[in-house]
Amino acid sequence: MSAKTQHKTPSSMELYEFGENYFQKHHIKTAEEVRPFLTGTHKFWLNVSSLENEDLLKELSALFDIHPLTMEDVLNCHQRPKFEEFENNIFIVSKMVYYVHSKKPTTEQISIFIGKNYVLTIQEDAYDFFDPIRTRLENPHGKMRKYGADYFAYTLIDSIVDKYFEIIETQEEMIDKMEDQIVANTSKQKLSSIFQLRKDIQHLKKIIWPTRELLSNWKKSESPLLKKKTDPFINDVYEHIIEVNENLEVQRESIATLVEMFLSSLSIKQNEVMKTLTIIATIFIPLTFIAGVYGMNFQFMPELSWKYGYFLTWVVFIGTTVAMMFYFKRKEWF
Amino acid sequence: MSAKTQHKTPSSMELYEFGENYFQKHHIKTAEEVRPFLTGTHKFWLNVSSLENEDLLKELSALFDIHPLTMEDVLNCHQRPKFEEFENNIFIVSKMVYYVHSKKPTTEQISIFIGKNYVLTIQEDAYDFFDPIRTRLENPHGKMRKYGADYFAYTLIDSIVDKYFEIIETQEEMIDKMEDQIVANTSKQKLSSIFQLRKDIQHLKKIIWPTRELLSNWKKSESPLLKKKTDPFINDVYEHIIEVNENLEVQRESIATLVEMFLSSLSIKQNEVMKTLTIIATIFIPLTFIAGVYGMNFQFMPELSWKYGYFLTWVVFIGTTVAMMFYFKRKEWF
Amino acid sequence: MSAKTQHKTPSSMELYEFGENYFQKHHIKTAEEVRPFLTGTHKFWLNVSSLENEDLLKELSALFDIHPLTMEDVLNCHQRPKFEEFENNIFIVSKMVYYVHSKKPTTEQISIFIGKNYVLTIQEDAYDFFDPIRTRLENPHGKMRKYGADYFAYTLIDSIVDKYFEIIETQEEMIDKMEDQIVANTSKQKLSSIFQLRKDIQHLKKIIWPTRELLSNWKKSESPLLKKKTDPFINDVYEHIIEVNENLEVQRESIATLVEMFLSSLSIKQNEVMKTLTIIATIFIPLTFIAGVYGMNFQFMPELSWKYGYFLTWVVFIGTTVAMMFYFKRKEWF
Amino acid sequence: MSAKTQHKTPSSMELYEFGENYFQKHHIKTAEEVRPFLTGTHKFWLNVSSLENEDLLKELSALFDIHPLTMEDVLNCHQRPKFEEFENNIFIVSKMVYYVHSKKPTTEQISIFIGKNYVLTIQEDAYDFFDPIRTRLENPHGKMRKYGADYFAYTLIDSIVDKYFEIIETQEEMIDKMEDQIVANTSKQKLSSIFQLRKDIQHLKKIIWPTRELLSNWKKSESPLLKKKTDPFINDVYEHIIEVNENLEVQRESIATLVEMFLSSLSIKQNEVMKTLTIIATIFIPLTFIAGVYGMNFQFMPELSWKYGYFLTWVVFIGTTVAMMFYFKRKEWF
Amino acid sequence: MSAKTQHKTPSSMELYEFGENYFQKHHIKTAEEVRPFLTGTHKFWLNVSSLENEDLLKELSALFDIHPLTMEDVLNCHQRPKFEEFENNIFIVSKMVYYVHSKKPTTEQISIFIGKNYVLTIQEDAYDFFDPIRTRLENPHGKMRKYGADYFAYTLIDSIVDKYFEIIETQEEMIDKMEDQIVANTSKQKLSSIFQLRKDIQHLKKIIWPTRELLSNWKKSESPLLKKKTDPFINDVYEHIIEVNENLEVQRESIATLVEMFLSSLSIKQNEVMKTLTIIATIFIPLTFIAGVYGMNFQFMPELSWKYGYFLTWVVFIGTTVAMMFYFKRKEWF
Repeated sequence: MSAKTQHKTPSSMELYEFGENYFQKHHIKTAEEVRPFLTGTHKFWLNVSSLENEDLLKELSALFDIHPLTMEDVLNCHQRPKFEEFENNIFIVSKMVYYVHSKKPTTEQISIFIGKNYVLTIQEDAYDFFDPIRTRLENPHGKMRKYGADYFAYTLIDSIVDKYFEIIETQEEMIDKMEDQIVANTSKQKLSSIFQLRKDIQHLKKIIWPTRELLSNWKKSESPLLKKKTDPFINDVYEHIIEVNENLEVQRESIATLVEMFLSSLSIKQNEVMKTLTIIATIFIPLTFIAGVYGMNFQFMPELSWKYGYFLTWVVFIGTTVAMMFYFKRKEWF
Repeated sequence: MSAKTQHKTPSSMELYEFGENYFQKHHIKTAEEVRPFLTGTHKFWLNVSSLENEDLLKELSALFDIHPLTMEDVLNCHQRPKFEEFENNIFIVSKMVYYVHSKKPTTEQISIFIGKNYVLTIQEDAYDFFDPIRTRLENPHGKMRKYGADYFAYTLIDSIVDKYFEIIETQEEMIDKMEDQIVANTSKQKLSSIFQLRKDIQHLKKIIWPTRELLSNWKKSESPLLKKKTDPFINDVYEHIIEVNENLEVQRESIATLVEMFLSSLSIKQNEVMKTLTIIATIFIPLTFIAGVYGMNFQFMPELSWKYGYFLTWVVFIGTTVAMMFYFKRKEWF
Repeated sequence: MSAKTQHKTPSSMELYEFGENYFQKHHIKTAEEVRPFLTGTHKFWLNVSSLENEDLLKELSALFDIHPLTMEDVLNCHQRPKFEEFENNIFIVSKMVYYVHSKKPTTEQISIFIGKNYVLTIQEDAYDFFDPIRTRLENPHGKMRKYGADYFAYTLIDSIVDKYFEIIETQEEMIDKMEDQIVANTSKQKLSSIFQLRKDIQHLKKIIWPTRELLSNWKKSESPLLKKKTDPFINDVYEHIIEVNENLEVQRESIATLVEMFLSSLSIKQNEVMKTLTIIATIFIPLTFIAGVYGMNFQFMPELSWKYGYFLTWVVFIGTTVAMMFYFKRKEWF
Repeated sequence: MSAKTQHKTPSSMELYEFGENYFQKHHIKTAEEVRPFLTGTHKFWLNVSSLENEDLLKELSALFDIHPLTMEDVLNCHQRPKFEEFENNIFIVSKMVYYVHSKKPTTEQISIFIGKNYVLTIQEDAYDFFDPIRTRLENPHGKMRKYGADYFAYTLIDSIVDKYFEIIETQEEMIDKMEDQIVANTSKQKLSSIFQLRKDIQHLKKIIWPTRELLSNWKKSESPLLKKKTDPFINDVYEHIIEVNENLEVQRESIATLVEMFLSSLSIKQNEVMKTLTIIATIFIPLTFIAGVYGMNFQFMPELSWKYGYFLTWVVFIGTTVAMMFYFKRKEWF
Repeated sequence: MSAKTQHKTPSSMELYEFGENYFQKHHIKTAEEVRPFLTGTHKFWLNVSSLENEDLLKELSALFDIHPLTMEDVLNCHQRPKFEEFENNIFIVSKMVYYVHSKKPTTEQISIFIGKNYVLTIQEDAYDFFDPIRTRLENPHGKMRKYGADYFAYTLIDSIVDKYFEIIETQEEMIDKMEDQIVANTSKQKLSSIFQLRKDIQHLKKIIWPTRELLSNWKKSESPLLKKKTDPFINDVYEHIIEVNENLEVQRESIATLVEMFLSSLSIKQNEVMKTLTIIATIFIPLTFIAGVYGMNFQFMPELSWKYGYFLTWVVFIGTTVAMMFYFKRKEWF
């Protein structure tokens, strides 16, 4: 598969070294600088914020003992979320989804490697929403410092999954708004915006399902890199992802309902239009015919010379109209 | 996930202490007052009727040895029904659904903890329908007094599930009424009310399915807190929930049928409207044309001076109409 | 769940005592009279034909060692078909479905208890179609006499399932008739009757599926009350129920097709109506305009004084009509 | 279930006795004549070509040790395809499907019994397509002679399954033809013929699925009557039946597409019809109005005496028409 | 099943002999020439580029020890992708899909046999896209040379699966283009082209699913011909095929959305057309009636002699029009 990756920002690396009573942030330029930390006594988080510097990635790949096929997965940004165990590390692909400016959610891939004393993350793009995690890391009393690398990886995934809820809520609001508009019929709701939302939901669904699998694999994994203590937390995220998925299912049905409502209301309107036309036409076309009859120029037309001819014609006009009205009323056309 | 909880009513606690030959109701203000009961000889039910007093909940959490993540679940009212086993207690999330005034069912979360000699319930809101259970508890000969805490928890869940049947019945009545209205065509049934009902059913379904799972987990559980003797009762509720679910499935299909019926009847009506228009227009437009012809002012129009010209025109008028009528009759248009 | 049972007929009991060379019918009034048979040397079938006499049922419940929850199931006529094993007996809930007078199938619940030497049946209502079984029981050479209680229970269920086939056939005939009517378009097939049939099928499906499960459980059961020898018979009924289910699936699709056909034929008709209107209107509206032009009263209108003015107008009238006709012909509008 | 069998042709039996170097055809009248072959040294195929002679079938049933319930299955022609193992033989129900004259496929049931040295087939009707097999049997070098009875049964089933492919191909051609007709719009494709084809496919599907199961059971069977050597052949038929099933699935979707295409093209046509009507009507109705105005007989109408009144009216007529044309053009109505 | 194969090009064979330090291309005419390579020290790839020369295939079949049924599968080009293990080799059927000139993807079957030291491929047609593989084979440092025959077979399948992505991308572009056209409404998007694309996707799906199974079987296989070392690569292709499948699922839904959008936009347009007609007709038909009234020739019509009669008529004309306009405006008809 051809790599469709777009490298947007220059690669930069942050390294957070931390232990129960220790915290230090380092700015790192080369892979070589990372080597001492690997054998250090502290845990560390190395975050690479872009895929641009392929040489760097190659060196990291060697340093962290990453399989070439796995590195290809890191570089290919159309990967499905997944969980893979290797001898020395665990490889996780996850997807960050967020709204920037636009109404369409943006997706960014993040690769997470969990090692004995490190978490290595490689982002597709520099944007992330991990700042609260960075802050919590600086807090000397937080759980993060005490727990192992797997717990740290959990906090990353947790914050990614939490973001899914925000997306869901935004979409729910959009659906509610669309529904109101269709019911109220005030604004001309564009059908295409409904279909766009459907596509977004479908897209999100394509991310959620494998994420569920990812977490399920984590739960089932017996890798020594994953401690028992982290299990309840993973269970928690797992439940969240199930909930996101259920919400997406409901949204899908809501969208289907929206389309149905839209088309139904179109049918109802069309029916109304047709009724208006039919009422006017069926009343006036016969009347016009009668008027046309007495507009004929035959030399012998006795009615024309009747004294009350014109008056009687009006009687017929009004009588017909009233009769028609009754008929339509009985048929509940208005 | 951000806590979306709305705390509506001030927290208050009731404590029902009971044994085979003992019953005592206590009003409790602080968590500390509960401590002696934990080591007492009687079983007790502690009911916290709101989530407002977070300090109290924290103290209870410590007192009853509840995991912080579990406490978060208690506070987050968007939890799915679930069943979780811990060393010292069993945690159940359930959803009470009821109609208050409005036509839309209200959902309220209730967290149930089953311990060795206690049941702790924490309600989202003070409203509940457990009064019959309170009454039965006062009855010295009821089974509740003799059976353990798990049986008491069962009675709570049983009364919650029984309420689902009421919801189902109400919805069934609404569906039947809507169907009658569509068939009878007397009132202008709003399509939006059908869609609203569909949403309610979908919402209920989202609660029922995990409740089934909850009960299935109870059945499979081998926790010593759950006695063998309670099993047939749990089987019974389990069957009820299956039945609720099947009924919901049927209702879903009924709603789909309703929408189809609505749209079909709209099509049938539109067809009728179109036929009326077409019959009137196809009869009178040609006649009007003929009348128009003899209303022309050409100097040389032989028919105008014919003695029976006008009479003949009427013959044509009536003849055309009758022919048309036959044509429509044969096409079964009326 | 509130018991929705309607007790229609007074309880009466028949007891058929039979063995390989023995047959005796007894009319029984009280539960106490049954006791000696339980320890007798012959097998017997006790049939209670209504749920009205709750006292009697309570006594039977004690006599036959039936769990209170099970007795509740017997009394609640909205039970799903099921199979439950107890220490001393096997409890089966089944549903008899039949047409009485009306076009809608009636459902009646029957509870079957299989004991060591007895079959106890409790019917919701006195109506049953077991007379052929009663007759076969009197026949001294029938298998029923030789086989055990489980075989007798099988014959009951077999005759219930056979009745399902009759229902299916009746429904198939109704579907075929509806289809013919839609295709032939002779009678005004009511859409609501199609939807009613759909509901009946759905209802039957709700019974069939758990019945399949019931039989599957019988097959898997290792209760000593069920003999190996009966297995091929149960397999046979099991296959029948699978077949009923498949037929119902096909009928469901047939109904969906019927609705589609109905709506399609409506569309086709509407199209025809519209074409008729359009052909007449597009031909005559322009002609009427032309006639209108020469009906104007301008003092200076040269054509009016042309000798062949009137004649030429007719040429235009006819020419336009013919041209239009060709146009519609080419468009295949008629 | 009441036997719905129709016995069309008188029972006749052929018996083909064969071994590696032996082949003999016998015409058999009574079951008794078959007995010596059962203990003979050669394999044989006994084919009963109708179900009419129930006495004969009963005798055969006794001779070949067939369970009464199994014999009932043979006689009931609404059996699903199935595979059943007994101590002394294997019972297979299969369905032959073929076109005779009509456009609707005909289904005929065939029961196959595989014994140690025989294959017994009982056909619902005399028609079969086994003549090539009869011919191959006469060929002294064919595999059939050397392989056992199970291989012979395989060849029968194989030829039945091969016939399914022909049915599928015929249906595919019909679908393609229908599709072309809808797209080309040349002939008036009847919607009912599409629905008829859908029914045929559904019917075939009802046969295919249990046939798959039949073969799956053969594969899993450990009966000594089925030799290992035949396994690859059964695998081959199994794959064929999977393929038939997949093709049927695709055809089902194709039919759904056909219906959608039909209805869409109907909508498109209706749209066109409406546009034609609207264009003509919106152009000429206002013009007719203007002509009507100057056809009024008011004594004081200044325009009537203008010298260029009539001319100006035509200017208005043509101007309005041209403006309308532009409007419709811009709206892409033609 | 009748062989539906079309043999398009004359058979020709290439044989690539390769080892870690060795590479030699041979042109082979007869099966006999291949024999020495089978016992040679190097691995080799034998590619037969057509199915025309059946004699050759028969000889190869004997030479490579291929079961007759397997050879039939090779010749029948309507095989489903599959994986079969034999004692001496592994048989894989795969499908190459590509676009040549036309808009419709072409499918070509390729049979792959993996032996101890060889890969034998038999193509339905000479066209393939394996040239990059041929080039890589000539590269002395490539992995292909070092790894075994199974790795080589993997590269073939990998390049086939990669091609599926291209097909998917092309289809995605087509879907996007169609969607834009429907939304923009500029060109008259043909519904039939949407349905054609749906068929192509369905067709591809029919290939993808069994390919997934093929790879799954490879993964599970314990054949000594498949080395452990190749496993991660197979896992990789497996993931790709899952991804292709997911994309196809999404495309299927997109197509369904396209059809819905098409029909919705048709409904919207029809609604607009109807509104235009109704507005014009409901305004002008009553006016024409009024004009018709005063065109009547009754001798006694007082209004005709009023001085401002004509003027007043115009007041009525304009007043009615304005009132109608307001009415339509309020109904949001334009």
